[in-house]
Amino acid sequence: MLLNKPVKGFLLDITGVLYNSSNTGGAAIDGSIEAVKRLYKESIVKFVSNESSHTREHLYERLTRLGFQLNKNDIYTPAPVAVDIIKENKLRPFLLVHKDCLDEFKDLDTSNPNCVLMGDAEEDFTFNNMNEAFKILLHSKERKLYSMGNGRFYQREDGPCLDVGAFVAALRYATNCEHEIIGKPNESYFMKAIEKMNLKKEDVIMIGDDIVSDVGGAQKCGIRGVCVRTGKWRPEWEKHPDVTPDYIGDNLQAIVNMILGS
Amino acid sequence: MLLNKPVKGFLLDITGVLYNSSNTGGAAIDGSIEAVKRLYKESIVKFVSNESSHTREHLYERLTRLGFQLNKNDIYTPAPVAVDIIKENKLRPFLLVHKDCLDEFKDLDTSNPNCVLMGDAEEDFTFNNMNEAFKILLHSKERKLYSMGNGRFYQREDGPCLDVGAFVAALRYATNCEHEIIGKPNESYFMKAIEKMNLKKEDVIMIGDDIVSDVGGAQKCGIRGVCVRTGKWRPEWEKHPDVTPDYIGDNLQAIVNMILGS
Repeated sequence: MLLNKPVKGFLLDITGVLYNSSNTGGAAIDGSIEAVKRLYKESIVKFVSNESSHTREHLYERLTRLGFQLNKNDIYTPAPVAVDIIKENKLRPFLLVHKDCLDEFKDLDTSNPNCVLMGDAEEDFTFNNMNEAFKILLHSKERKLYSMGNGRFYQREDGPCLDVGAFVAALRYATNCEHEIIGKPNESYFMKAIEKMNLKKEDVIMIGDDIVSDVGGAQKCGIRGVCVRTGKWRPEWEKHPDVTPDYIGDNLQAIVNMILGS
Repeated sequence: MLLNKPVKGFLLDITGVLYNSSNTGGAAIDGSIEAVKRLYKESIVKFVSNESSHTREHLYERLTRLGFQLNKNDIYTPAPVAVDIIKENKLRPFLLVHKDCLDEFKDLDTSNPNCVLMGDAEEDFTFNNMNEAFKILLHSKERKLYSMGNGRFYQREDGPCLDVGAFVAALRYATNCEHEIIGKPNESYFMKAIEKMNLKKEDVIMIGDDIVSDVGGAQKCGIRGVCVRTGKWRPEWEKHPDVTPDYIGDNLQAIVNMILGS
């Protein structure tokens, strides 16, 4: 099914596909450095991440340090998109985001907040910060929660780790607020990268380790979705109740070699 | 509707009905001290709480200090029930509970945990504790999460405050685990108190400030449910989409006087 149509471009998730993260930098996944090199040589590639605990700059430096060769401008992260959306809507967010990323939001007015913007805040998901966000959602007229991604969990070197979507679920349960995801699986987010490739969505595939957000999300937009058995992959996903990937491969390199010919 | 049948006994929620809590002890709600006095004199009363940030002992002392006259044995809290259930099921819980209540669980085996027991842990809902609970739910065979109550929020003197149900929602979203509520709105929890009164459920009413858990929960079990406009009460609940209370009163005293005659 995957190869019924030619694959002219590749959208790649980063964490769990290129590398597994950790507090000390993480480790490249076997074969991914070579696979990225091959994609730059023989196809078109963009990196579509929901990463919100590092800026694009950090992420680029981290990947480069691990040995990846890629262009910084090919990396898509949700923070700049979030800034645009919140400015357009003339809102003043309470920022529940990672401390290493605060700088990305410095142009936003955060006085007297009337909405909440959440990223993967990790240790900053404290009871007091969650409570602060809760009160704003309960009392503001807009009752609007934006999250950069909505993942259940992601894989760190020290094991699986709760992602922003869990904390979104907590605030939605408590407030019944409106919620908008900025990042995957939002169609406009995938399209941003595809348009830059000068391709159509039926020309590309999305490769990710999140079967719901990466694979199912892409498929809902008409993009072929491929799952890797690396990162947060779980064996029970071979028969996932909601999502049937167009293909499942052992890792990025195996998939790239299968498509481009090994 | 409320008074179509006689009211022979009263089940009362505590927080938001008798008093509003705070870190320094809280304050009695106007008229509640007198209302409780009257109920002890003219009817039968039990206190059915989902409180899990204080032991029954603490709660009794706190209420007594505020001026309430009541019997300690009339107070029902979920912790002792949780201990029984977990022992019966021969499970070893990871305790995500309030530090002031740890003593209530001292008889449980918490080595090598294979389930999670959550209460209103307040400041102990840290990212690391949530992550620990998440990993146990992801990896254990049982995938079982018990929570003492499942409230959205409760009212503290300093404003509304996230309740345990929000953090339950986070873990359920991330793991799709099994979940069992110990406390309201679980029918067996209401029945424990009603049986002690030697009454039937159609003889009693439940008065609470949580329209879903107290009022809707009671109604689902065939108990009349009355809401107070104190505690966490929200004006939009006058027309709640899911629950129509049998009666809404301004506060406990007004309801008691209406029923017993003022």
